[in-house]
Amino acid sequence: MYRIGIDLGGTNIAVGVVDEQYRILARHSVPTGAHRPAEAVVADMCAAVEAVLQQAGIALSECAGIGVGSPGTCDPQTGEVVRSYNLGWHHVPLCRMLEEHFHLPARLGNDANCAALAETVAGAAVGCRNMVLITLGTGVGGGIILDGKIHAGMYGAGAELGHMLLVLEGEPCTCGRRGCWEAYASATALIRQTIAAGKEFSQSLLAQIPAEEVNGQTVFDAADRGDGAAQQVIDRYCTYIAAGCTDLVNSLAPEMILLGGGVSRQGERLLEPIREYVATHCFGQREGAIPVMDVAKLGNEAGIIGAAAL
Amino acid sequence: MYRIGIDLGGTNIAVGVVDEQYRILARHSVPTGAHRPAEAVVADMCAAVEAVLQQAGIALSECAGIGVGSPGTCDPQTGEVVRSYNLGWHHVPLCRMLEEHFHLPARLGNDANCAALAETVAGAAVGCRNMVLITLGTGVGGGIILDGKIHAGMYGAGAELGHMLLVLEGEPCTCGRRGCWEAYASATALIRQTIAAGKEFSQSLLAQIPAEEVNGQTVFDAADRGDGAAQQVIDRYCTYIAAGCTDLVNSLAPEMILLGGGVSRQGERLLEPIREYVATHCFGQREGAIPVMDVAKLGNEAGIIGAAAL
Repeated sequence: MYRIGIDLGGTNIAVGVVDEQYRILARHSVPTGAHRPAEAVVADMCAAVEAVLQQAGIALSECAGIGVGSPGTCDPQTGEVVRSYNLGWHHVPLCRMLEEHFHLPARLGNDANCAALAETVAGAAVGCRNMVLITLGTGVGGGIILDGKIHAGMYGAGAELGHMLLVLEGEPCTCGRRGCWEAYASATALIRQTIAAGKEFSQSLLAQIPAEEVNGQTVFDAADRGDGAAQQVIDRYCTYIAAGCTDLVNSLAPEMILLGGGVSRQGERLLEPIREYVATHCFGQREGAIPVMDVAKLGNEAGIIGAAAL
Repeated sequence: MYRIGIDLGGTNIAVGVVDEQYRILARHSVPTGAHRPAEAVVADMCAAVEAVLQQAGIALSECAGIGVGSPGTCDPQTGEVVRSYNLGWHHVPLCRMLEEHFHLPARLGNDANCAALAETVAGAAVGCRNMVLITLGTGVGGGIILDGKIHAGMYGAGAELGHMLLVLEGEPCTCGRRGCWEAYASATALIRQTIAAGKEFSQSLLAQIPAEEVNGQTVFDAADRGDGAAQQVIDRYCTYIAAGCTDLVNSLAPEMILLGGGVSRQGERLLEPIREYVATHCFGQREGAIPVMDVAKLGNEAGIIGAAAL
């Protein structure tokens, strides 16, 4: 049997059909047109599913089910998108709507949780039953897999790992709280830290780059050219990521922590200092439950694969 | 069938036999004599089990199993006490030793996890399948119940919730890290905060109490007598507890958070401001996944009951 995976994003809806090894056999993408009524978005979603099946030459009757990964709070029990600011949705019964159209069982998960699940079925965490995926992007997203299943918590509201505390009453966060991990460890935060270092150290290469041209890569490029201030920003940024990872070790003791998102492309450059920090700061230090730490593997495909695996 | 529960502490071993409703039918306690070889401690433990069965008039053949709650890192998979500073133990195969003696299945759990489990079978969280227990004592202990079972993590090393971060590089913690929740929210921390307020505010009642006489109750008594500085300490202390609870909401989204340990006897006096803080700081604020927050019910009996329920 095949499975259909839908990666519902704020910009695009990516639909794929996967085989039993979670290989994507065909994919199709349409604009989300967020903030339209849910019915209109779901109609486009259904048309995209039909297009992808036709493209793959697979009949609906050969599919075991449909999964959707959506931004926001998704209740896997009720199949409802409880709240999604990106989509402008409130209490949309997405699974029921898809089931009525396709007469196939539909499942729903938060997109970050789907990405974590995808890594366990076809990515860097295959065979791992207890892991956490941290996505370092505009924000810091999280997905928790315990005993092989997504841990979504009450109403599917858990795994908002970017909104755990790093500094009580510290930097303001988009969520309204202050001092969240996201306010220090997201790519957005790294850009802010890069700009601040450029202002502080007039001799630094960073001082020569206009603030509006700084992106998540800038500081790494400057460090490559031997810029000390840039390396300092990177070192501190690694501490921020690692401090949050240490909290995950002390609370959940997962077997593996994966980093995803654009910044994670820096690979060992981030992973090495992060591993060292975790091993010297977690409970029990080097005798503690130190997880394997690596980068996620699936990138853009994680959404479809994880949704299909729900 | 009956079950045997053993609460192995650094000072005493408390043994009880419980019925299917987790009522303790008989109990018996002997000194642990910690830091003796494990064989000697286990021999006393076995004798205590035999004494409690005799006391209850129950035969070993009427018991379904034995559970032990132990301080330190306990691996429920291997039945081994991996590391316990309180007992001076390293890699003690406790379950195997008990099984060889009694020819009954033996199970092992960390004491804080057992206390959490106990609340779900016979305490304040009966019927709740996803909850966290926070024990505010000398340290801050934690127990996590997910889907009705203890979440112990790799090697049983998880749920060290007191060692999640409140302030990056903040107050030194006993674990070697700085800024842990425990360093702000334990009874030990509250005593330190009380003494500091006494030094800072010479007009406060707290200034009249010698440091060595300050305990976890002192600041509450002073606030009862209208002392403003004392109330300020309490307000801040509630913020510390609540900030950590908010992290648990954002990461695990449990249905319930229970507070245990000596300080939790303050009840609503702590719970009210903590609930308000969580509702205004968690992800989604008042629309978020706000758990029921209450105090634990079982007190000293939690150890035996939770061990029996393993």
